Amino acid sequence: MASKTKNYKILAAAKRAQQQDKIPETWRIPAESFQDATNVMDIPLTCGILDQTEVKITSDYDATALLEQLKARVWSTEQVIVAFCKRAAIAHQLTNCLTEIFFEDAIERAKKLDLEYEQKFRGDALPPLFGLPISLKDSFQVAGYDNSTGLGCYVDQPAKEHSALAAMLIDLGAVLYCKTNLPQAIMTGDSDNNIFGRTLNPRNKMLTVGGSTGGEGALIALRGSILGVGTDIAGSIRIPSLCNGIYGFRASVGLVPHGGVRDVTTPGTDIVRSTAGPMATSLRDCSLFLKTILQADTWKYDSTSVSVPWLDLEPARKLRVGVAQNDGVYTPSPPIRRALQQAVSLLRDNDDIQIIPIDLPDVKILYQDHVSYVTLPGSDYYYEQFARTGEPVVPSLETVGILSVPGTTLQGFFDLNVRRAGAAKQYLKLFRDNEIDVIVMPPAPHTAVPLDCWATAAYTGLWNYLDYPAISVPVGYVRDFDSADDLSNAQFGPEDEQVYRLYTSPEQYKDAPVSIQAVGYRQRDEALLKAAAVLDSIINRV
Amino acid sequence: MASKTKNYKILAAAKRAQQQDKIPETWRIPAESFQDATNVMDIPLTCGILDQTEVKITSDYDATALLEQLKARVWSTEQVIVAFCKRAAIAHQLTNCLTEIFFEDAIERAKKLDLEYEQKFRGDALPPLFGLPISLKDSFQVAGYDNSTGLGCYVDQPAKEHSALAAMLIDLGAVLYCKTNLPQAIMTGDSDNNIFGRTLNPRNKMLTVGGSTGGEGALIALRGSILGVGTDIAGSIRIPSLCNGIYGFRASVGLVPHGGVRDVTTPGTDIVRSTAGPMATSLRDCSLFLKTILQADTWKYDSTSVSVPWLDLEPARKLRVGVAQNDGVYTPSPPIRRALQQAVSLLRDNDDIQIIPIDLPDVKILYQDHVSYVTLPGSDYYYEQFARTGEPVVPSLETVGILSVPGTTLQGFFDLNVRRAGAAKQYLKLFRDNEIDVIVMPPAPHTAVPLDCWATAAYTGLWNYLDYPAISVPVGYVRDFDSADDLSNAQFGPEDEQVYRLYTSPEQYKDAPVSIQAVGYRQRDEALLKAAAVLDSIINRV
Repeated sequence: MASKTKNYKILAAAKRAQQQDKIPETWRIPAESFQDATNVMDIPLTCGILDQTEVKITSDYDATALLEQLKARVWSTEQVIVAFCKRAAIAHQLTNCLTEIFFEDAIERAKKLDLEYEQKFRGDALPPLFGLPISLKDSFQVAGYDNSTGLGCYVDQPAKEHSALAAMLIDLGAVLYCKTNLPQAIMTGDSDNNIFGRTLNPRNKMLTVGGSTGGEGALIALRGSILGVGTDIAGSIRIPSLCNGIYGFRASVGLVPHGGVRDVTTPGTDIVRSTAGPMATSLRDCSLFLKTILQADTWKYDSTSVSVPWLDLEPARKLRVGVAQNDGVYTPSPPIRRALQQAVSLLRDNDDIQIIPIDLPDVKILYQDHVSYVTLPGSDYYYEQFARTGEPVVPSLETVGILSVPGTTLQGFFDLNVRRAGAAKQYLKLFRDNEIDVIVMPPAPHTAVPLDCWATAAYTGLWNYLDYPAISVPVGYVRDFDSADDLSNAQFGPEDEQVYRLYTSPEQYKDAPVSIQAVGYRQRDEALLKAAAVLDSIINRV
Repeated sequence: MASKTKNYKILAAAKRAQQQDKIPETWRIPAESFQDATNVMDIPLTCGILDQTEVKITSDYDATALLEQLKARVWSTEQVIVAFCKRAAIAHQLTNCLTEIFFEDAIERAKKLDLEYEQKFRGDALPPLFGLPISLKDSFQVAGYDNSTGLGCYVDQPAKEHSALAAMLIDLGAVLYCKTNLPQAIMTGDSDNNIFGRTLNPRNKMLTVGGSTGGEGALIALRGSILGVGTDIAGSIRIPSLCNGIYGFRASVGLVPHGGVRDVTTPGTDIVRSTAGPMATSLRDCSLFLKTILQADTWKYDSTSVSVPWLDLEPARKLRVGVAQNDGVYTPSPPIRRALQQAVSLLRDNDDIQIIPIDLPDVKILYQDHVSYVTLPGSDYYYEQFARTGEPVVPSLETVGILSVPGTTLQGFFDLNVRRAGAAKQYLKLFRDNEIDVIVMPPAPHTAVPLDCWATAAYTGLWNYLDYPAISVPVGYVRDFDSADDLSNAQFGPEDEQVYRLYTSPEQYKDAPVSIQAVGYRQRDEALLKAAAVLDSIINRV
């Protein structure tokens, strides 16, 4: 590791100037045209940078449909890649969602793929993701570019090789064109760091974009990407997905190659492991991603991968859906309760669905253990990394409080393992005794909240702790009639009340997306995606 | 845990008297008839306890063939189970291979299965392992019986529920009828403990039966069982398999349910995890076992299982076989070198095989790390368990030396994980750069050795450390012409020389089986078994 003597401010300024240089003059929008808007969702269409074809390419398809267009040569790869580079550039100017920008390389590769289409590939021999643009969270190594994760001490250290997933996606025909922003330490519900700054929520700048994969969240919401890849150790895919009204799938550990992802935790601590997964505008794109990866011999790319193949399962006949109204620790805010109720009501009316009310046992203690796992050695290692370039702790990292969790001992670690083994047994019993195919619950006790206020990830983190696959499914938005109600509705004590009071009014939370979370059993990711597709079709009538 | 005040000697005497009671008078053989024999392999056939049908049932089939006979009703389940109970009783009297004996329950269940065959099952609706006798290592919980693992402090504490695998095997139609012996602490190359005593090698009583699943080794060699299940964290399936001339398969961690297996290590330490797997008289029986288990939703039984399904893969076209002559630490003894050379020569002559000589990097340091993993907290926990009933350390546990390995710290544990991640990457590269389908190497630097002399498990333990599947395949015996050669042939230093000098003469090692080890890539267990079957067919002409 190169020793850094530069101050983080100098590094940040240089890095941002580099970013600016990567955006062609003709793709720039005057700041005055959007800086006063709270919601910038329409600006990509109105700013005049995209022509009609580019608007169509970037607006009208999900990844599955775009791939069909690409393979059918309705659009050339170059057309598609240029369109997404432009729209990503716009998204970045609106929300500060990108970190590393490699549009030029991407367009170069697109041209090469177009040539190969004519010369090398013959019809169905096309690679499965031929020409598809895919964005990556900054922590994935892409050779030649930094994966600083927004930490000063890792700036200007370009990766020497691709992360396993990047290599795999390229081999599968995808085109990588940018990486996206995330919070300092990759461990908060905002996406803010001292090098790249904060990513904004394009639907409501006053609310967090979510984290840690927040850059992807904003980029995909603005359709500067239609398929991105994040990582999730406590909700880092699902939280920004719910904040941005997109689909975000946390795969079981090891199914999607995670080798070559920078983790800011102490090396060797990964017992509860971070996992990679897709973020997208449709559920079928999450399936497309997982299926394509699992069919392509992940083991050849990554010594940490778990070889669970895609089996082309049929979805279960009559789905048994366990519904958890809350986690027994935090009471969902009014819009979350209302949306879950509506979703469950639609499910209940369907003959192919059986609803089973369930309670999730012991979430409070299990979440404490989860936090202990991700902070096993305490916080010295974090502080040491920050100190190298003199950077301060960002506010959202103070809010989540993990830097003040004391480390543990080897025996403490064994004790955590014993409790985790017990919880794994208990939750399997919950699944089996109720013959549950899928659990439906909120992905958080609230929507996106005001900046730097996201304090807990228990609703999502539970499934990391147990290593169950889980997906955030958008089901609507905060509505005018979602009034705040009395604090006495917070049923689980003072900490609950503190979070519950974050919801003040539908005005403050205007345009905030609302999602549900669908959870499956460990390593039965395909079964979860099949079940979630059924739920999605009923709830969202897609 | 009940506190034990009884001395281990009292517990042992009571336990052995119980065992004696479980063997009917008419199944007993006079000790004089075998106690002077070094090799007792023929005694089951000559002792007069088995009738001609029982001899046929227990001698003529592997599990796959016997299952066909059972399903075709050539023999009733009762006939088969009685025959194996009798032969297991004989094997036990000859080698002391059993721990818990439940012949009566088994025969009862066999009668029930025979009735069900007539009344409930119709032809092809039979459970996949219908009526098949399966023996288990003592550490698997079977409800109603101890799983003391030969430790005084766990005697007279019958299991309240089945281990996941026992429950699964019963649901699959198998008949459990006995459990088998293992060493104190389940961690040595002999099978000797203070409660059940030592299991002898039926081919040569002067040599170890192997460990830790040594009871299975002797029982299967004598055909008191044709399919048993062991566990392996450093070689505990493969070592007794090679000592007894049978097939023993160490599956990747989690593929075969391991929940409800007693581990004598400190709870929560299982990072390098023990794994369950079959021991059998044919390679196809190992495949039968794994296939049946993997097709039966292991996740429903065990919260620790890894959901890798059986895919009915075709074996690779032209197999690329990496051959490692040694592990770079211990020089194989003359019969091992000779047998490997013969095997490789047969493979080389085959047009469907490509031989690639390989070296295994860094085995010495990786094996040290492996030992550190299994002794993370040091030895206090072992000593504490032994002290509860005043039992001494058995000699073979002194030999392996793990009780003197100091424990580590949390940081030491992280360092181990970092090195393991590096090794995993390095060995994947070895596989990929050479496009290896399967590695062939010795499973140990020697055959079964004299009692209490087994000191190292690096040849097998490496694959536990990396979690690669590996199978011991018998290829012959020590031959008259396998003379001991000069110690100077031990090429790796003083420790190597110490092990190398164990081989003194073909006379001392008379009838000792010789095996090779076939190793596949992590979680590609089915691919390994398919490849190993090709190798087996060429080397053993089966």
